[in-house]
Amino acid sequence: MKKHIVIGQAGGPTSVMNASLIGLIEKVYKDHKLTFSVGGYEGLAYANFIDDSIKNIEKIKQYKQVPGSCLTSGRFKIEDSTIVSACQNLKKIGADVLVMIGGNGSMKALQLIGCYAKTFNLDLQTIGIPKTVDNDLAGTDHAPGFGSAVRYVAQSVKDIGYDLASMQNFEQVRIIETMGRNAGWLTAGAGLYKQYGFEAPHTILLPETQVDSRQVLDEIKKTIELYGYSIVVVSEGVNWEHNQYRQIVNGREVLGGVARNIVKTIQNNLQVHARAEILGMNQRSSSIFVSDQDFYEAEHAGKYAGILINEGRTEEMVTIERLSTAPYHVKMGGISLTTVANGGEKVMPKEFIKNRDKYYKWLSPLVGPENYLSPPSLFRKEEKYASSFHQS
Amino acid sequence: MKKHIVIGQAGGPTSVMNASLIGLIEKVYKDHKLTFSVGGYEGLAYANFIDDSIKNIEKIKQYKQVPGSCLTSGRFKIEDSTIVSACQNLKKIGADVLVMIGGNGSMKALQLIGCYAKTFNLDLQTIGIPKTVDNDLAGTDHAPGFGSAVRYVAQSVKDIGYDLASMQNFEQVRIIETMGRNAGWLTAGAGLYKQYGFEAPHTILLPETQVDSRQVLDEIKKTIELYGYSIVVVSEGVNWEHNQYRQIVNGREVLGGVARNIVKTIQNNLQVHARAEILGMNQRSSSIFVSDQDFYEAEHAGKYAGILINEGRTEEMVTIERLSTAPYHVKMGGISLTTVANGGEKVMPKEFIKNRDKYYKWLSPLVGPENYLSPPSLFRKEEKYASSFHQS
Repeated sequence: MKKHIVIGQAGGPTSVMNASLIGLIEKVYKDHKLTFSVGGYEGLAYANFIDDSIKNIEKIKQYKQVPGSCLTSGRFKIEDSTIVSACQNLKKIGADVLVMIGGNGSMKALQLIGCYAKTFNLDLQTIGIPKTVDNDLAGTDHAPGFGSAVRYVAQSVKDIGYDLASMQNFEQVRIIETMGRNAGWLTAGAGLYKQYGFEAPHTILLPETQVDSRQVLDEIKKTIELYGYSIVVVSEGVNWEHNQYRQIVNGREVLGGVARNIVKTIQNNLQVHARAEILGMNQRSSSIFVSDQDFYEAEHAGKYAGILINEGRTEEMVTIERLSTAPYHVKMGGISLTTVANGGEKVMPKEFIKNRDKYYKWLSPLVGPENYLSPPSLFRKEEKYASSFHQS
Repeated sequence: MKKHIVIGQAGGPTSVMNASLIGLIEKVYKDHKLTFSVGGYEGLAYANFIDDSIKNIEKIKQYKQVPGSCLTSGRFKIEDSTIVSACQNLKKIGADVLVMIGGNGSMKALQLIGCYAKTFNLDLQTIGIPKTVDNDLAGTDHAPGFGSAVRYVAQSVKDIGYDLASMQNFEQVRIIETMGRNAGWLTAGAGLYKQYGFEAPHTILLPETQVDSRQVLDEIKKTIELYGYSIVVVSEGVNWEHNQYRQIVNGREVLGGVARNIVKTIQNNLQVHARAEILGMNQRSSSIFVSDQDFYEAEHAGKYAGILINEGRTEEMVTIERLSTAPYHVKMGGISLTTVANGGEKVMPKEFIKNRDKYYKWLSPLVGPENYLSPPSLFRKEEKYASSFHQS
């Protein structure tokens, strides 16, 4: 049966979000009619749609390797009035299926639209495709977008560590701030490529755990004594001295800036030189850091949404179920949107926070290997105090 | 004749600075005695040396793909007293040759040490190997480290552009700040991968040209009207409304922060949402962005320093001479350190500032191709106002 499928992308994009869209199109295009919503839920509310002309489909396909969301996604307020107009517009164009590629907020909105649709006598299948760099979506082992973001953070932190180690006679501390909101998955991922104690990161601060600033200062001091420099990675969601740091963008509170405040505390308490570095949009958009496995899973999550559609499933989000870690095997599945919504923001489990090696074993297949082998040690410290060369 | 060669790395590192070091070692290790200075000029002044034991050489070689400077480089004040002790220490250990891998400041210091050495009756060959991400070294077509830094900036700006285009219903402007000090080479490189008008960057602000803030605001406004979003790339050295922005790190003025001030001006004058993004240490340390050509030239600049040593040349810096751009051919050469020092900070020539295409043609072989093909256009704008799909 030919269905009319409306497809949108919502929320902050990732570097593999278009791969999911194109995976879905490749699976359903020849059997069904497609309509694309511009700006995610905004397009539904304002009937801003794109049809599935060959020209449009060919254009979308050219976005497969391109970061961002080619239909545009963005932020849009989901409330009674906008859900009502979304349902009216979906009914008007005769939609049978609504697919949204999105994160927590988008899955909740999709569930709501599914509920409202019934009151409009609209028989609407709702299917979600997960995406998030924060990995805070419940109901799935992990979400597409996360592995590539970790690859960016882990390799960048390791690289910046070698840079700072080189500059230790000038500057000793760098506080690197990552995305992740209230979940520490991405921040903790910063240590994935660390092989030796001297390598960055030396300290990782997660939003899931109470951060004691005096303890952090002590750790920085000890790390500098040992290795000459210290790299601290901090999640944007961390409480530092009883504050979470935010900025207002377009009336919305956006986390950010804790690293600069940690630097202030360091400057007031330690005799070292420190700077903050806020890893920016590259975390979710760097195309060169896309992990092969993440790309593959993103594309297949899109295709699997097509399978769920053909099976007549509804109110479900595509999931990635892990069958085994070594060797790495996953399969796609579906889970009720209500379960996802009720799961809230999925933070790191205690077993991963306590046992970082266990986490990295779990994480590694999603991210892939590091870019160079770690050298066995640093030169400066050991040589300076042990075997400096003097010819008398 | 077996010579005693002292080797150091100085200044801010690059992602290919170790490749130069190891290129040099591979060329000279079997014929000469080597000593390594820890922390660049600091190691010379304080006799902090590492010998060429097999263990040390094997360890250094493992740093070939690692960013930073494995001997440590850093910042060190070059003044009369430190130059005198450097010369005394070089004499004490019986140095015949001093090789420094560094930028502008390091080449000037090397020239000074060469001058002072004569007054100490020290017959010292001085050879410099260029490195800089800013490309502000005179006397050479370009310097190792620059191509990889451009690759990071150009691809990141293009990627972040697609991210912001996706988010345009939430945020319309991003001001991206790059390194480069008083030279715009790296900043201008941000546009290398731009193929279509809608792609980032839309505006580039160089330190070489007078920036008119009202004109910039107008350009941002027009760009948003055309494409829905605007990406401005600004050099850290740009004057914005009569100010250069700096922070103090370890008593040294470090450029930085102009992007945040441009955002303030935008917020006060335009009805759009803007954020600053400061591209950080990744510009000079991201290992995954290393350009093949840059790595190759860095390694060969090291090897060529070995050739200059064997030929008995002195007071020279290795240069890269461009023979042709298409096809790209270069050869290595040597130029007097005095010429380099007198050349000062090499800014972009007017012909490149006026004719950006000419610059990108010159630049492209050092950086390599982009990571994905540009799709032919954006969806949102044209579709929204031209052919929105409505079924009545």
